[in-house]
Amino acid sequence: MDLLSEKFKRLGIDNAPGQEVLQKDVALDLRGEPLPGPAVNFSHGDVDAHIPTPGSLDLFVEGFKKGGCVAYTEYRGGKGERDDVAAKLAAFTGAPIDPDNEIIITPGTQGALFLALGCLVGRGDKVAIVEPDYFDNRKLVEFFEGELVPVKLDYLSQNTCAGVNLDALEESFKEGVKLFLFSNPNNPTGVIYSRKEIEGIASLAKKYNVTLLVDQLYSRQIFDNHPYTHLRALKDRPDNMLTIMGPSKTESLSGFRLGTAFGSKWIIDRMEKLQAIVTLRAPGYSQYVLKCWFNEPEGFMAKRVAEHQRIRDDLVALVRSHEGCAVRTTEGGSYIFPQLPPMDVSISDFAKIVRKLTGVVITPGTEFGPQFTRNFRVNFSQDHDNAINAIDRVLQIMERYRSK
Amino acid sequence: MDLLSEKFKRLGIDNAPGQEVLQKDVALDLRGEPLPGPAVNFSHGDVDAHIPTPGSLDLFVEGFKKGGCVAYTEYRGGKGERDDVAAKLAAFTGAPIDPDNEIIITPGTQGALFLALGCLVGRGDKVAIVEPDYFDNRKLVEFFEGELVPVKLDYLSQNTCAGVNLDALEESFKEGVKLFLFSNPNNPTGVIYSRKEIEGIASLAKKYNVTLLVDQLYSRQIFDNHPYTHLRALKDRPDNMLTIMGPSKTESLSGFRLGTAFGSKWIIDRMEKLQAIVTLRAPGYSQYVLKCWFNEPEGFMAKRVAEHQRIRDDLVALVRSHEGCAVRTTEGGSYIFPQLPPMDVSISDFAKIVRKLTGVVITPGTEFGPQFTRNFRVNFSQDHDNAINAIDRVLQIMERYRSK
Repeated sequence: MDLLSEKFKRLGIDNAPGQEVLQKDVALDLRGEPLPGPAVNFSHGDVDAHIPTPGSLDLFVEGFKKGGCVAYTEYRGGKGERDDVAAKLAAFTGAPIDPDNEIIITPGTQGALFLALGCLVGRGDKVAIVEPDYFDNRKLVEFFEGELVPVKLDYLSQNTCAGVNLDALEESFKEGVKLFLFSNPNNPTGVIYSRKEIEGIASLAKKYNVTLLVDQLYSRQIFDNHPYTHLRALKDRPDNMLTIMGPSKTESLSGFRLGTAFGSKWIIDRMEKLQAIVTLRAPGYSQYVLKCWFNEPEGFMAKRVAEHQRIRDDLVALVRSHEGCAVRTTEGGSYIFPQLPPMDVSISDFAKIVRKLTGVVITPGTEFGPQFTRNFRVNFSQDHDNAINAIDRVLQIMERYRSK
Repeated sequence: MDLLSEKFKRLGIDNAPGQEVLQKDVALDLRGEPLPGPAVNFSHGDVDAHIPTPGSLDLFVEGFKKGGCVAYTEYRGGKGERDDVAAKLAAFTGAPIDPDNEIIITPGTQGALFLALGCLVGRGDKVAIVEPDYFDNRKLVEFFEGELVPVKLDYLSQNTCAGVNLDALEESFKEGVKLFLFSNPNNPTGVIYSRKEIEGIASLAKKYNVTLLVDQLYSRQIFDNHPYTHLRALKDRPDNMLTIMGPSKTESLSGFRLGTAFGSKWIIDRMEKLQAIVTLRAPGYSQYVLKCWFNEPEGFMAKRVAEHQRIRDDLVALVRSHEGCAVRTTEGGSYIFPQLPPMDVSISDFAKIVRKLTGVVITPGTEFGPQFTRNFRVNFSQDHDNAINAIDRVLQIMERYRSK
């Protein structure tokens, strides 16, 4: 088999969120009757239950009516949109952003991640990646033929920090890692890195000249007023770094395909060159919608966070009510990552069985690291009652497969 | 310098259409006074002069209101949208398309090109590319570390075919080319491949097992009822091929970022895997807009083609009125690619001088192949009078630099 065929064979997406409809029928050990109820898809948020920012569609229409000047922007995004969003992101993250040189508007944060990795990972380059972390990070490193160096996140045994092993991180940096990539709040566990952890990461990156890429997609959805440290606001931040944020999650604007990346000029310059051949630009009229980001109606964000906190509380309690189940309380974002007791089936088959017997879609933990054979991820940005009902059924199914 | 730095150094975009605002000031040999007039940007079409398909915005709004089911589609595009667009493209191109397996909806046709090349070009793979042809084709081959094998298009001396050299093409196939990529109508010359040429290409591809990728972006905008042969409709079409089309040009829907690619199942499967890590999907609400594609109001397309034909006629006559200027009459699409007489400045400096003295943006021929040192490309999808006025001024400036 040639190199490309090998590469695409490894790039599986059948278990990727949203792709479950493509799964081939396989022989499953189905136990008991179906448990009917709402067909919740926990692989992504429900933008019907938590609607897009009010006014977002009006802005799109306004952008469309402005015409060509909005349809055809520079590859890095329209000047007006960059000026506006750079100022807002600078205020939020606590450090200035030069709108001409230090920010690019991308087709979703996925677009930002792809461009960033495409600019930073050459063949054979070592990339440190947290386990567990967003599943596509691993695939991106594979696609660009980098070498993945996993860094364990000991999230379950901690409660005052995320649990990153800084000694192991330093070891990996010593061994030649060029890029360290992590999400904060962490996807899929919802833990937030402590100030000490962020400072530790920054200081190691400076010492070993490692580029840092932090995915802060969920950094606006923080619960219980948990402290949050913006890496880029540190006095001693490293020279080479990039932050990624976008309005697809908490703000439910995913259907517009918008993201941003901001940081070192040389990285942004490269990303624009790559964007020029990948998609030319983020959708022009959609870029105009960024005007409502960080500019939501009074009380909108507080209410959204409170609603998600309530769903989280009820789900966490439900998971913990089953013996042998463990879950860390989400500090930020819309995910929980429950660990189940040993079962008679693999987590991947369990997800398929759950879909067959309940109509509920969950994401197997192994998408986030090979060792998470008893975990699954839930995006709880759903209707409250449906979410509770659905996870209750998932756990009832789990009981049928619990190892004796 | 490391491999990645080298690669990104080669990926220049300063002369790329739409990026001219980023050009650094350089010392230019400016002759004579500015020629004021409309600031036409010939690097892309003017969607204010030729407005988006009526009803397109309404469809976007309808899609938005449908909510989550439109925002979150499968990576290859929503099932309903694929069913609809596959049927329409099958009817247009004259051969069936399986909507489940043989089509993917992409963020623009640029997105389609990127995904296709990413799936078909491995390190060191030989790729035959027409010269002149769309400038990003060359950059994509470079990015994926393929080896570019140029195939000359002798477009100026022909008038019953595009002028592809089939003998040279066969030579390149013999030497191990894996992929042949070309646009039809050709960008930037506007010529259409004859039936004999298309059949010749198909037959060579079959003989040497070369994959074909044909960019038919402008195949709905054909002038003078010129015959057009759809490669994929040939009885003897090769097994491995892909066609790319989208509604960004003739239909002026670029601001929605929509494209499609359709062809061999294995290529579409790979493209979806790649799309999953590049942008996840084409913008969800935008996908819904595809319902108006090939479904335009009565007479809309005929009028649009007629309007462009009139602009073409007047521009071609204007170019030919200057001694030593040559241009082939556009058979399809919105481009002319005039050849100028020898001048005292390079074509790249000439484009910069034109921008300084007239406010008009043209694209240097060297973006389309290193040998086009006396050509420039014009996207004439503009207001008629502005376009004539602007090219008149460009040619007046040319006269100031004509070599004695």
